[in-house]
Amino acid sequence: MQVQRVGVVGLGSMGLGVARSLLRGGFETHVCDVRPEIVRQLETEGAKGHADAKALAPQVEALILLVVNAEQVETVLFGEASAAAALPKNSIVILSTTVSPAFAEALGTRLSVLGLRLIDAPVSGGAAKAATGEMSVMGAGPDDAFADCAGLFDAIAAKLYRLGERPGQGSTVKMVNQLLAGVHIAAAAEAMALGIRAGADPETLYEVICASAGGSWMFQNRVPHILKGDYTPLSAVNIFVKDLGIVLDYAKKSVFPLPLSATAHQMFLQAAADGHGGEDDAAVIKIFPGIDLPKES
Amino acid sequence: MQVQRVGVVGLGSMGLGVARSLLRGGFETHVCDVRPEIVRQLETEGAKGHADAKALAPQVEALILLVVNAEQVETVLFGEASAAAALPKNSIVILSTTVSPAFAEALGTRLSVLGLRLIDAPVSGGAAKAATGEMSVMGAGPDDAFADCAGLFDAIAAKLYRLGERPGQGSTVKMVNQLLAGVHIAAAAEAMALGIRAGADPETLYEVICASAGGSWMFQNRVPHILKGDYTPLSAVNIFVKDLGIVLDYAKKSVFPLPLSATAHQMFLQAAADGHGGEDDAAVIKIFPGIDLPKES
Repeated sequence: MQVQRVGVVGLGSMGLGVARSLLRGGFETHVCDVRPEIVRQLETEGAKGHADAKALAPQVEALILLVVNAEQVETVLFGEASAAAALPKNSIVILSTTVSPAFAEALGTRLSVLGLRLIDAPVSGGAAKAATGEMSVMGAGPDDAFADCAGLFDAIAAKLYRLGERPGQGSTVKMVNQLLAGVHIAAAAEAMALGIRAGADPETLYEVICASAGGSWMFQNRVPHILKGDYTPLSAVNIFVKDLGIVLDYAKKSVFPLPLSATAHQMFLQAAADGHGGEDDAAVIKIFPGIDLPKES
Repeated sequence: MQVQRVGVVGLGSMGLGVARSLLRGGFETHVCDVRPEIVRQLETEGAKGHADAKALAPQVEALILLVVNAEQVETVLFGEASAAAALPKNSIVILSTTVSPAFAEALGTRLSVLGLRLIDAPVSGGAAKAATGEMSVMGAGPDDAFADCAGLFDAIAAKLYRLGERPGQGSTVKMVNQLLAGVHIAAAAEAMALGIRAGADPETLYEVICASAGGSWMFQNRVPHILKGDYTPLSAVNIFVKDLGIVLDYAKKSVFPLPLSATAHQMFLQAAADGHGGEDDAAVIKIFPGIDLPKES
């Protein structure tokens, strides 16, 4: 049976896009967030706002979590809000927050004890794709849960990868993606810093690299922030302090070396320590001394 | 006046493609290489073979260097072969070997003393693009030299970037490209190693990452070698030992830190020390212990 009443908890740039995609798709869309003004905004667009996840939970058949990290997932489901206990039996939790594979796997077990189903469903594509309902979803969970959410995923995602029945398999692929995303942003910063130090024209350098073997999705997407000198956070330095931290914690527990991830993590930590944690992640280039970065015009 | 008689020195995978593109373009194409069998092969395709660069030089108006490194460039032009002294006055040397910006800049001065013009013209695109005459060229040199070589670049390149009049500016952009290429190959290896360690299906992981924000040109191009277990060298581990070495030497002289490049360089060095230097650069994944890599079928 296709779910029709859906909750979105966490209305950051990703959650906001997801909620709006659900409204466009004709779903009864329930929302909550710690910022009441964003809830009120979505109410004017047709969503049903709630004071917290506990109040929201009894109204929905599926609950999409797009909060910041595992700690917030824990709080929403089992802490003060205790939404897990308030969800109707057999309803579906869709975990789209980036967490460690071990957390996602354990959460599947904890929710099944309560008669709930978990889809481990981290997402990729950024705020723009979330807004247009064209995210990529890296999904793992029970087949029946995916069947019930077919229409829901149609509304929010352009591509749904089915990575297995066991929660944790989605977060594993997402973790690998975040490893690459973080290393590639730091590499883009290091490369542009060296090019500027060596006297290359930054705009030309960007153009040539985008058309060459040194290109990456992140280089193409983030370097324009450096060229414009605009570090308004689309995704902040602190997100990669967190996400590369998840990757490294996982690897440490597995006794597995990740030399590039560890180095990139130190670069983001240095940027955060220098006071740039809240800026766009491209601000990691500010750790390179003695170069003149393009200024905001 | 458009050059018509062109020499290619160094018939590796890139030089071979360039020579064949020149033949297709109707240029009188002179070639030499330390391996006489490859020279004989090209003679059957219409090229004029020579025993060495000194014998070749008097026959051409432009000389394209696609030897392995700066030391070989030095030997060809000023060492035993002494091709620089044998080139006709006002002819053009096209330096497409990857060298440091400082070497390219100094070479421009040394050649101009001899009445020769230098185009600093490193290339990108790999053997496949060289074969089809669709390389990218990162060119810097005198305008009149570019004017004389317009037809020549048309024959060998899909895209010619003009980066300035001063030799060294091309090699600077190429150096930044090689920094990214090397870091991205090592990052692709690290990411696939972690994914395999965590139990992800390698083929699915590759597919998802290629469509996600973690993608890069190198991830897309090199990971299939890992999936096939085929480390036949298209570009070898030793090439990045060399190219990241050039990047790091340049940065050291400039007193500029490159944390990711230094880490990636160590990874390639470790692979080379483990005996994989002559294998495809994707073999850098073999430094990660305790994982089962896909086997060649």
